Amino acid sequence: MKDRIYMDYAATTPVSPEVAEEMAPYFRECFGNPSSIHGTGREAHKALDLARQRTAEAIGAKPREIYFTSGGSESDSWAIIGTAFALKDKGRHIITSAVEHHAVLRSCEWLGKQGFEVTYLPVDAEGRVSPADAAAAMRKDTILISVMTANNEIGTLEPVQEIGAAARERGIRFHTDAVQAIGAIPVNTEALHADLMSISAHKFHGPKGTGCLYIREGIRIDPLIHGGEQERRMRAGTENLAGIVGLGKAIELATGGMHEKSARIAALRDRLVRGIREKTEGVRLNGHPTLRLPNNCSLSFDGIEGEALLLRLDLAGIAASGGSACASGSLEPSHVLKAIGLSDEEARGSLRLTLGDGTTEEETEEVIRVMPEIVADLRSMR
Amino acid sequence: MKDRIYMDYAATTPVSPEVAEEMAPYFRECFGNPSSIHGTGREAHKALDLARQRTAEAIGAKPREIYFTSGGSESDSWAIIGTAFALKDKGRHIITSAVEHHAVLRSCEWLGKQGFEVTYLPVDAEGRVSPADAAAAMRKDTILISVMTANNEIGTLEPVQEIGAAARERGIRFHTDAVQAIGAIPVNTEALHADLMSISAHKFHGPKGTGCLYIREGIRIDPLIHGGEQERRMRAGTENLAGIVGLGKAIELATGGMHEKSARIAALRDRLVRGIREKTEGVRLNGHPTLRLPNNCSLSFDGIEGEALLLRLDLAGIAASGGSACASGSLEPSHVLKAIGLSDEEARGSLRLTLGDGTTEEETEEVIRVMPEIVADLRSMR
Repeated sequence: MKDRIYMDYAATTPVSPEVAEEMAPYFRECFGNPSSIHGTGREAHKALDLARQRTAEAIGAKPREIYFTSGGSESDSWAIIGTAFALKDKGRHIITSAVEHHAVLRSCEWLGKQGFEVTYLPVDAEGRVSPADAAAAMRKDTILISVMTANNEIGTLEPVQEIGAAARERGIRFHTDAVQAIGAIPVNTEALHADLMSISAHKFHGPKGTGCLYIREGIRIDPLIHGGEQERRMRAGTENLAGIVGLGKAIELATGGMHEKSARIAALRDRLVRGIREKTEGVRLNGHPTLRLPNNCSLSFDGIEGEALLLRLDLAGIAASGGSACASGSLEPSHVLKAIGLSDEEARGSLRLTLGDGTTEEETEEVIRVMPEIVADLRSMR
Repeated sequence: MKDRIYMDYAATTPVSPEVAEEMAPYFRECFGNPSSIHGTGREAHKALDLARQRTAEAIGAKPREIYFTSGGSESDSWAIIGTAFALKDKGRHIITSAVEHHAVLRSCEWLGKQGFEVTYLPVDAEGRVSPADAAAAMRKDTILISVMTANNEIGTLEPVQEIGAAARERGIRFHTDAVQAIGAIPVNTEALHADLMSISAHKFHGPKGTGCLYIREGIRIDPLIHGGEQERRMRAGTENLAGIVGLGKAIELATGGMHEKSARIAALRDRLVRGIREKTEGVRLNGHPTLRLPNNCSLSFDGIEGEALLLRLDLAGIAASGGSACASGSLEPSHVLKAIGLSDEEARGSLRLTLGDGTTEEETEEVIRVMPEIVADLRSMR
């Protein structure tokens, strides 16, 4: 067994050896600026093209529909703010859900201060948006609906296909944050009727600081980062060449053989949930029982302070998470857990264990072994 | 002599061995999400703190004034758009110069469409903004003035200290794009009276896709990338840990021993300019003769198509640039060269050679040897 058990793959993942190897030459040897017309630049441009092609193939898109960004939060912010400003003369109403990533929610909040109106769709107790609710919220002045493919905290899969279809029927643009879904479940821009889709490399063993926004051909949005001619004049800045090469390789690896990998991880996750619940009373599985990401195990423990649980697990060599890593600077209980009906206290007693390619059976059994002792101990201290 | 001669250091630079070495562990070993509270995350957070401290020290700032971004274009866009939206109730007038990087100019153009008014200051024949012009343009409703520290195409140093002082006196915020200046000339946020300063790592042997925005303590701007709690809630997105570690190391190396390095490079550059002009008629040095970046050699050749010259140099193994790399997808002649009074034809006949730490005397002599032949040949073909 390894020294430490990492069960926080939804927060971030290590770069895989194959990805690191493919990135290596682009720091010092092939370091050119892809915009330069000399040989060093052309070489860089070729690497960019290959990464774009691999990324497009992985999500059923055309290479010219892929715009590289610095990650999921930029992609989300750009999709939403870029659409809002491009279509502000057509309408100023945006629909999203109560359980979106903060990159979506805070972009919407910011637009709210700029004269846009935002409808936040509720979710059921399992975290699902109702497609009927979504359709009912669509108005003549609705310009965008943004619903995530899969939730980052509780793993629930959203009915994005139905919502996308309803949006397209009404000529409303549909954005989906697919950051947690890539490499875990099939993601196809056509099947989802997506006009815009956000992707982040470090969630599937690619490097941090790299992602992309899929923008369907024919769709126009305003840039968020202005400047040079990069990314067909849509996203300025010298391309993060090594990072983009890493994204291309990582998405190819993540989507290849995905079904087998996901089945293995889901089996370990199911064993983990069962194992923990068998030995401990008052444990609730958050999110949908079956329509969920294969690697996600979100649990609420009665009478437990989640932060104390996290720290005890950390001392036992187990890395886990409360809600999402992104919100961990915040003292507020998770907006996702509150949206599915948990009280503040229940939300604070929650733990997210997320498995990955590196997770072993031994690790799973070790967590099952350790958890009841820690929970019992914490409960006895109250 | 190396196979190829790289004289395009203003476009981008290779990551230095020390920087690559320092970044290496952060892809696979220390890969945690700095926002996670477990050990893996805390380790990552420590690395982030060190990089922030190094970056702050290099520009005379406090660590909490450094906000990591994906590079210079994001920093410029954020500084300008973030200021505009934060202060829009105070005023809607922005001042900048005609020779700014496109990241500044296009951000201003975009704001122009959102109800802001932009004054573009002219420059003299050597590319300098007049501080008197800048002061005269400042109005009651002016919220921001943005003037670059040093020009990326012609190397001219701008009188940012005077402009910054005038802005501060009037309570107008001052942003400077210092992307080309770091590691080449002394850059100190206090001396420049800068409220906002943009920096990009790949210009000084750091990695592409990483930069920062200095935001003076007490200054409030709107975020550009919304989401999680990272960067004191000002710039969302999982931190590009390896990239940020690289930026920290690179800026420490670039600013240490800068005077000796810059003197060596300036001597080579002066030899290059002299050598080329001695053997070829009709060559003009663009930019200021002395108040310029040590590594910049911007030349205009009478009766030459710059693109043809670039391609011939490339065939001879010499990597150079027309205007800036960022604008090379554009067919328009450089806005900088036009601003200093060159005709379209003169601007199209321009070449930028930029030297760096790796430039040798042998390389310089080789370029001096090759250039007259190519120029004569191209001129004979007209």
